Amino acid sequence: MSDSLIFEWPVRVYYEDTDAGGIVFYANYLKFFERARTEWLRACGIDQQRLADSNGIVFVVRRTAVEYTSPARLDDVIRVVSRIGRLGRASVDFHQEAWCDGVLLASGDIRVASVDRASIRPAAIPDAVLDGLKRGPHAPATASCGANPDRA
Amino acid sequence: MSDSLIFEWPVRVYYEDTDAGGIVFYANYLKFFERARTEWLRACGIDQQRLADSNGIVFVVRRTAVEYTSPARLDDVIRVVSRIGRLGRASVDFHQEAWCDGVLLASGDIRVASVDRASIRPAAIPDAVLDGLKRGPHAPATASCGANPDRA
Amino acid sequence: MSDSLIFEWPVRVYYEDTDAGGIVFYANYLKFFERARTEWLRACGIDQQRLADSNGIVFVVRRTAVEYTSPARLDDVIRVVSRIGRLGRASVDFHQEAWCDGVLLASGDIRVASVDRASIRPAAIPDAVLDGLKRGPHAPATASCGANPDRA
Amino acid sequence: MSDSLIFEWPVRVYYEDTDAGGIVFYANYLKFFERARTEWLRACGIDQQRLADSNGIVFVVRRTAVEYTSPARLDDVIRVVSRIGRLGRASVDFHQEAWCDGVLLASGDIRVASVDRASIRPAAIPDAVLDGLKRGPHAPATASCGANPDRA
Repeated sequence: MSDSLIFEWPVRVYYEDTDAGGIVFYANYLKFFERARTEWLRACGIDQQRLADSNGIVFVVRRTAVEYTSPARLDDVIRVVSRIGRLGRASVDFHQEAWCDGVLLASGDIRVASVDRASIRPAAIPDAVLDGLKRGPHAPATASCGANPDRA
Repeated sequence: MSDSLIFEWPVRVYYEDTDAGGIVFYANYLKFFERARTEWLRACGIDQQRLADSNGIVFVVRRTAVEYTSPARLDDVIRVVSRIGRLGRASVDFHQEAWCDGVLLASGDIRVASVDRASIRPAAIPDAVLDGLKRGPHAPATASCGANPDRA
Repeated sequence: MSDSLIFEWPVRVYYEDTDAGGIVFYANYLKFFERARTEWLRACGIDQQRLADSNGIVFVVRRTAVEYTSPARLDDVIRVVSRIGRLGRASVDFHQEAWCDGVLLASGDIRVASVDRASIRPAAIPDAVLDGLKRGPHAPATASCGANPDRA
Repeated sequence: MSDSLIFEWPVRVYYEDTDAGGIVFYANYLKFFERARTEWLRACGIDQQRLADSNGIVFVVRRTAVEYTSPARLDDVIRVVSRIGRLGRASVDFHQEAWCDGVLLASGDIRVASVDRASIRPAAIPDAVLDGLKRGPHAPATASCGANPDRA
């Protein structure tokens, strides 16, 4: 698989992410994975809001399968590594992993479907999006830090 | 103040509500307070969705002031006691307290404003809503358990 | 499968559960499923806190696989139907479904492992827990409404 | 007030932060404010975990007062501007504002207390922490992007 189809995004763990077990609440990995997918699309020049407004296409999560192998804790910096497993006509399968200090925390397979916003029916992914994903992130590294675009 | 302007709602604490300090994450009291306000309106026969659809009126939170006095923990049942402090023409001030086993956990003053959905400008609270709030909850006690309507 | 191994729990949808798509944020089904499992254990007389304190046993989520088939919206009452798919020596596989008005919203397979709190190693599920699960919920229906224990 | 007592932190809005009103759920500003405070302390060289381990001191939120003036939406980059209003012996009052494109979204006054972890009683803020706060952030700007520490 080409490097352009791999994307890394860091996530800092705050109190809001943890639970009384002292670790990151497992459901929150779905949030971390979504942040990474969103930033990936952004770095590929794909603007989901514009896509909805101009093409009437929205992406919805159809399926999530996550294995939890090791816990993360407060203040950890989690590295989310994402790649595309299958790029279909109306859906994309992402494989995403959360790592911290060389330890795998969680790995997930997330299916995202392209649907027509009005009918909520499957819709072909626009060519511009497919091209963007295949071309990969083209924004400079610092600009890909979505958390800090104007200080970069 | 009339009893009709006091409302109690219980909230169970799950892992999702806690943080690595072993206690309920403070921001979550705003969620508990909102659940209680929502159930209060429902028990008063006020349907917010219908209100939005027919009158174009939505309620938005304008101000929250919360003091945290004692922590709650996993599995606790929190009793949210709410009363109206001020019932204005275009806003309502709620005073809400969270209790557990006779201990005050948190108390908050929440201002909710009535706004026109389209313009997002202040709008008079419809008379039917004012009447409903003044009349108070009329649903039977068990039916007011929003968590379990069809088993009541 | 015996009826004792099926459990239903209702969940009301509040603003906190929704996202800008106007529907329940998909990650939140994991929260709803956990609330249902927790109440199931409670109804079976299994106190997780006591289990941790006396036996040093805690339950952790190892794997979640969820399919999302239809969206839920604000104010909906979701019925979570749970059953045990496999009751192992050190883990339990739950199959859980979220329904609303006869429509399947989401279905999930959740593996929960029994681990020793100190070592975080797999540990046999205590016999008392196995017995409780096999015997099933014995609390009266109203008392199983964890959201409203003292008004029942 | 010295510039060293002002700190800015950007926060990107994802689906997880929004609600069915199409805007950021108000309770989430408390999360954004906490992320900003945490990164401020980190940039000042204050490690809360080390503080807890070596001095037995933890910071807890005692009071939050937030006014919501304008909504934020999906994909917005919110700039959290924080300053210290009062630096006491056992508590700190933060004034924090959330801005987007020159529009004030929310402003909050947050009181954080220093407590002894064991007794949960007020405890003097250690001198090293006071010094760190007064000296202000000393990490380089790019390193203050907590979301992306190792790519900076």
